[in-house]
Amino acid sequence: MTGRRPGQGTNQEAVRRHNLGTLLRHVHGAGSISRSELTTAMGLNRSTIADLVGQLEALGVTEQGRPVGGARPKAGRPSPSVAVAADGPYVVAVDLGVDRAVVARVGLGGRLHERAEAPIPLEEAEAWQVGGIVAGLVRQVVAAAPDTAPLVGLGISVPGLVRRTDGLVRLAPNLDWHDVSFAGIVLAALGLEVPVRLGNDADLGALAEHRRGAGMGIDDLIFLSGNCGVGAGVIAHGHRLEGAGGYAGEVGHISFDPRGLDCHCGSKGCWETEVGGYAIARAIGLPQREVPQLATALAQWEERTPELSAIARSLGLGLSTIVNIFNPELIVLGGYFSALYSLCADDVHAGLGERSLTASFDAVTLSVPGLGQDSVLLGAAEIAFEALFADPEAALGAAVVDAHGQLAV
Amino acid sequence: MTGRRPGQGTNQEAVRRHNLGTLLRHVHGAGSISRSELTTAMGLNRSTIADLVGQLEALGVTEQGRPVGGARPKAGRPSPSVAVAADGPYVVAVDLGVDRAVVARVGLGGRLHERAEAPIPLEEAEAWQVGGIVAGLVRQVVAAAPDTAPLVGLGISVPGLVRRTDGLVRLAPNLDWHDVSFAGIVLAALGLEVPVRLGNDADLGALAEHRRGAGMGIDDLIFLSGNCGVGAGVIAHGHRLEGAGGYAGEVGHISFDPRGLDCHCGSKGCWETEVGGYAIARAIGLPQREVPQLATALAQWEERTPELSAIARSLGLGLSTIVNIFNPELIVLGGYFSALYSLCADDVHAGLGERSLTASFDAVTLSVPGLGQDSVLLGAAEIAFEALFADPEAALGAAVVDAHGQLAV
Repeated sequence: MTGRRPGQGTNQEAVRRHNLGTLLRHVHGAGSISRSELTTAMGLNRSTIADLVGQLEALGVTEQGRPVGGARPKAGRPSPSVAVAADGPYVVAVDLGVDRAVVARVGLGGRLHERAEAPIPLEEAEAWQVGGIVAGLVRQVVAAAPDTAPLVGLGISVPGLVRRTDGLVRLAPNLDWHDVSFAGIVLAALGLEVPVRLGNDADLGALAEHRRGAGMGIDDLIFLSGNCGVGAGVIAHGHRLEGAGGYAGEVGHISFDPRGLDCHCGSKGCWETEVGGYAIARAIGLPQREVPQLATALAQWEERTPELSAIARSLGLGLSTIVNIFNPELIVLGGYFSALYSLCADDVHAGLGERSLTASFDAVTLSVPGLGQDSVLLGAAEIAFEALFADPEAALGAAVVDAHGQLAV
Repeated sequence: MTGRRPGQGTNQEAVRRHNLGTLLRHVHGAGSISRSELTTAMGLNRSTIADLVGQLEALGVTEQGRPVGGARPKAGRPSPSVAVAADGPYVVAVDLGVDRAVVARVGLGGRLHERAEAPIPLEEAEAWQVGGIVAGLVRQVVAAAPDTAPLVGLGISVPGLVRRTDGLVRLAPNLDWHDVSFAGIVLAALGLEVPVRLGNDADLGALAEHRRGAGMGIDDLIFLSGNCGVGAGVIAHGHRLEGAGGYAGEVGHISFDPRGLDCHCGSKGCWETEVGGYAIARAIGLPQREVPQLATALAQWEERTPELSAIARSLGLGLSTIVNIFNPELIVLGGYFSALYSLCADDVHAGLGERSLTASFDAVTLSVPGLGQDSVLLGAAEIAFEALFADPEAALGAAVVDAHGQLAV
């Protein structure tokens, strides 16, 4: 080939942008990482890594960390490390539950800074009302941010079906929302222009547990969310399973018993009617209106009653369908399932063993979340950061630098 | 940056190999494709494409096809096209059923050349016996190949669980195989050293329907195989869902009715017991020993009996679990399900509508296979070709050039 062809410069620029974002993703994953580890992980030479690190520092995104030993500690100078900048970019993550909203300011590296929460009263659960509550919480956590730190975006978890093309909430059954543009509602209540991404709670729990929780390094995992209803987030071969519209993972509506109870979805005997929040609440005598607080109530429960054992076995039986279909390496039991599993692990295992195919049963491990009750919240932060890794300069250009000042009431 | 760094030459060579394979994958997908289409599809300039095409021609893999109009037919010379070479590389695909083996010689572009089949008598279904039958069929179809055409590899479909790391058949229930190294058995019977890849029948059906059947251009689809038992191959976001060990998609063992019939898997009331081959055979009065021929028998059946209607409705009910879990755009009904769906589409739709979530139900279409009864066979050919697209030169180096002569009895 001779000469420089049109478009080549543009390609080099695209490669640089891609490398810049990828390097930042590595720093985000580790919190702090040595240059020699980056050289190995990215397959680039040292001077290219040094150039990219310089660019990120100039952008105020990373800073020099403490030197760490290289791959061969004895062989000369320690490798300089790259750390997340203390007053660098941040996102605001929103975990919308059925009866309350939890909002947190989250920095690179998954650092949870300020956190605020508020109840969502049953009579104030219309989308515009919840949007107002969320906007108030966003204001609270942003108020504490360093003045110069840019707000990259909002990530919002919704307990329902979120359309993947545009984030429309198609259905949030426990909030009784249908086709709600929640991103627009929150932005209007904030009076701010900032990128917003929405996701399903179980999908976001799976994402966070995969990136920095119990599922680190595991490419085939399921996060089962117990949050009134039942849903699953699926990571298959390292990627989030979304489905055509974004609605994959609705395992609560697996047919469990054709002669079973009526389900709110209009069907009968869905798995959710046997193992969901309302069934567990009945088993421990918790009033139905307190189901949204079930995870907390069950965490304090100490007795393995026959009723709970039976539900735990049904949990295992239903999980066997998931195991036979997905052949996962790990199932993380989130929400109230975490406490149920801690109480009745043997019953869950028994149910699972009863109906799983041997090859898939042998491959799977059950676990409680590595991130406690914050999996979903941290997953919401992860999707809000995505644009920053795709193109750091463009995302910082779209960020709000003085959110603190702009949002002051 | 200054100078040329170590490894840069190697990188360029890796890029060239990658591009060579990718270009060949495009030719394979289309059968014949113009250079201007390749330029657009691969984002490379014309002279790079011309270089790569020259290399593939020199390897005997492609040849110049008839010129076709360019993207702007009026604007000058027609674009030369690249076609599959008539005596180019081929693979042998094996579709192992429960009572017979079908073997075919398949060229690039998915061209089915010679085909041969033989029954697998029940009393000769041990792996070494079936290996002998398959080897005989491979000899037959290879005998007709052009002398100079290289045999790139064998692709074998198995009705069972295939371990993804090494192709071990963990379980093929209807053949009563457990932990069988079938690749080694076939190669020993052939007396030949050639790459062999194995896959699960439903997975391979999904792959072929996605690449050149009813699912072309559709990134989220399910292929439901009806072949004595019931299994699913899943394409999610354009990629095959494998699971940790390779056993994903065992939908036949979804729990359908806890009070149902005993299943051969050791469980009770699996979906397969309600809609599988033995259930359908009972409904049309076909003797149980003829279940392996059910697809053919049902294709000739003309009456929508109440018994078939009921099974079709159960098919739809079970599919709703698949729809709720995967949110696919398309479900392709393979094997005997194709004929059942042709007879009783309304019942299947009714069952599906009864239990699916609206958002996912609205997104899904059901279809018979675009490749008739050859989906699985062509999928076996696809996996055998994979090595050729990963690195054309290395794969041709490992190919057997005079398979014809070497296999002559």
